[in-house]
Amino acid sequence: MSLDLAKWELIEGNLATPAGFRAAAVAAGIKKPGGSLDLAMIFSDSPDTTAAGVFTTNRVAAAPVLLSRQNLIDSRGSCRAVVVNAGNANACTGRAGMQTAQETTRLAARLLAIESSQVLVASTGVIGVPLKPDLILSQLPVLKAQLCRENAAAVAKAIMTTDTFPKTCVARSQVKGKTVHIAGIAKGSGMIHPHMATMLSFITTDAAMGERMLHNQLAAAAESSFNRVTVDGDMSTNDTAVALASGMAEITVIPGNASRAWFAEGLALVCQSLARMIARDGEGASKMVTVEVMGARTPKDADRVARAIANSPLVKTALAGSDPNWGRIICAAGYSGAKFDPSKIDVSVNHTPLCQKGVDAGSDEATARAELDQKEIVLHVDLHAGKATARMWTCDFTRGYIDINASYRS
Amino acid sequence: MSLDLAKWELIEGNLATPAGFRAAAVAAGIKKPGGSLDLAMIFSDSPDTTAAGVFTTNRVAAAPVLLSRQNLIDSRGSCRAVVVNAGNANACTGRAGMQTAQETTRLAARLLAIESSQVLVASTGVIGVPLKPDLILSQLPVLKAQLCRENAAAVAKAIMTTDTFPKTCVARSQVKGKTVHIAGIAKGSGMIHPHMATMLSFITTDAAMGERMLHNQLAAAAESSFNRVTVDGDMSTNDTAVALASGMAEITVIPGNASRAWFAEGLALVCQSLARMIARDGEGASKMVTVEVMGARTPKDADRVARAIANSPLVKTALAGSDPNWGRIICAAGYSGAKFDPSKIDVSVNHTPLCQKGVDAGSDEATARAELDQKEIVLHVDLHAGKATARMWTCDFTRGYIDINASYRS
Repeated sequence: MSLDLAKWELIEGNLATPAGFRAAAVAAGIKKPGGSLDLAMIFSDSPDTTAAGVFTTNRVAAAPVLLSRQNLIDSRGSCRAVVVNAGNANACTGRAGMQTAQETTRLAARLLAIESSQVLVASTGVIGVPLKPDLILSQLPVLKAQLCRENAAAVAKAIMTTDTFPKTCVARSQVKGKTVHIAGIAKGSGMIHPHMATMLSFITTDAAMGERMLHNQLAAAAESSFNRVTVDGDMSTNDTAVALASGMAEITVIPGNASRAWFAEGLALVCQSLARMIARDGEGASKMVTVEVMGARTPKDADRVARAIANSPLVKTALAGSDPNWGRIICAAGYSGAKFDPSKIDVSVNHTPLCQKGVDAGSDEATARAELDQKEIVLHVDLHAGKATARMWTCDFTRGYIDINASYRS
Repeated sequence: MSLDLAKWELIEGNLATPAGFRAAAVAAGIKKPGGSLDLAMIFSDSPDTTAAGVFTTNRVAAAPVLLSRQNLIDSRGSCRAVVVNAGNANACTGRAGMQTAQETTRLAARLLAIESSQVLVASTGVIGVPLKPDLILSQLPVLKAQLCRENAAAVAKAIMTTDTFPKTCVARSQVKGKTVHIAGIAKGSGMIHPHMATMLSFITTDAAMGERMLHNQLAAAAESSFNRVTVDGDMSTNDTAVALASGMAEITVIPGNASRAWFAEGLALVCQSLARMIARDGEGASKMVTVEVMGARTPKDADRVARAIANSPLVKTALAGSDPNWGRIICAAGYSGAKFDPSKIDVSVNHTPLCQKGVDAGSDEATARAELDQKEIVLHVDLHAGKATARMWTCDFTRGYIDINASYRS
């Protein structure tokens, strides 16, 4: 069976389903004393592991983001460990915050017998509150001792903040008599926005590839998945997606080879599955919404329209109330900056037309409301201005969002 | 007393306080049958009246916006009447919507013995629902008959949608033994955003000036007032600010003369007062918030930071909960696109510092919360990157916003 014909299937599993990985999670008291799991370690046993990361574009980047970016460079993409905490973002914490991140990588490296530049760190939680280093440092030996395949399942829980469920996805492919895995976990919930906004994701695979290939694969997959989710339009200081490739499956992804597209397909499957979970679990969300834009003049215009609709508080509150207020959808398209003729636009929800050629489609309001009462909604917008398309995932905007965010720190 | 020394003072009044204006409002059943005031007419008795307007930049512009823009051109800025309705935006209503707007100007013109191009129209309310022409046309003779100075006070009520109070501001200045007035009304509430988003404002003055001068004055005043208010970041299809100058005070604003700055000061006073009322009355708002950015590298950077903070749902929900979560403020500055050093930024609320040089300022949390419990809050952000400043007005983001917008059409 050739690589380009090999299919990916989703299976049960965790970050240690790909060969070569172990992990562990503990309750370190960072969320609150005696709280839930909030600190985790992921480790690859292979000395030939390659690593890649994509990070927030926010100018105010948290200490762990700055340090992990640097460590990927310093280690030439040979990172083998990740230490991640939830409950405190270690952002806007000045020199002390950077020292905490550095001490974390140094101690973890000593315990794991690797270089400190081979350790990546990530944090999520409240901004601007000092992160007590001992909460993390005292638990690193415990994490090291508990590293195993079974404990890896708990990592998806340890990175949760206001998430209501852990997000894990594992894909498997059989090629040339070998089995290859890609596993991913993510946390999202609030402050999720295109271009990596408070989102953490960790990917493991037992495929083998160079660090440049892994970076390109990760960047492309993030663009078609995490960067297409929006919950509230805010972009975080801490967004991080990291991939580690152990190579233990003995299948190598090679530039210019069919293996490239084969792996990209599997990674996109995992990342898009996680992205949809993030949208479904948006803070206070009652509905998962996919915005599908077609007929745009250019891909950029399609993207603009999809993002404007997915980010509009007026569209999202209407969705919460199952109000077929398609005027707000057209209005958002109108201020997106895209060029189109308003008298040609069509809008439908699932398969019920709301607007045709810019005016009311005449559908029965009760039918439209019934469609909007579904837990999964697809908004189709056809601009009839060209052939470009774009997709965004989002959620509705409910009182729950306000309640969660008005007292997040309390 | 020379013009450049003449001061403006705020007085009680309405759109007919400036000499030469009459107005009236009726309940036409557009909001709902037997509902409140929803249709109004404003008229200037002077044949020498000049007119100007600034409109939404949304590509999906409502029929009355398209027609009013054209009428200002066709009449060379000699419009003397405005017909405005609330309850239906006459947007995304196709050819029928444009016909309704045209018939409105034609009948009003006939009744008022002016050209139809001298009539401006404006609408606000739900988008995409046909506006029954008879609701308006049948009431135009009634409005014409009721035009007087006393009835002008009701116009501010007739343009309200989800506004909780009418917004009127009148300024007076004494010069050369003459008294000059500028009066303004506005509606805002939801969907308010920089660049004229569902906001209507009508300005009358008895100063005299050419239509070019009036346009430049109005555009500048709107930029420093209405375009600096944001409620939810959505931009509407219907935003309109219109000014009529009757000239009846016999004081002329002349290019290159001190009168130019004198009038600009008065118009800015009126428009900024209205803008602050709009922010205070944002949908569901419990607090009026001023964002003051200083120390930016460029005016554009200052503007970007002020807008990003004022539009951030996470900042605004924190304000609703009186949570001194300054990390969200810095985070918004960070993704605004402005260039600055995160380790130099200062943030304070009223006069209580929250963040100094990018880290917690150490203020007592109870003190910070007490400041945030005020009904009027000023957020000061100093980037220490230059000398440029910018200001935005906004409000907090509460459950009330969700409740209002989840069922706006119901």
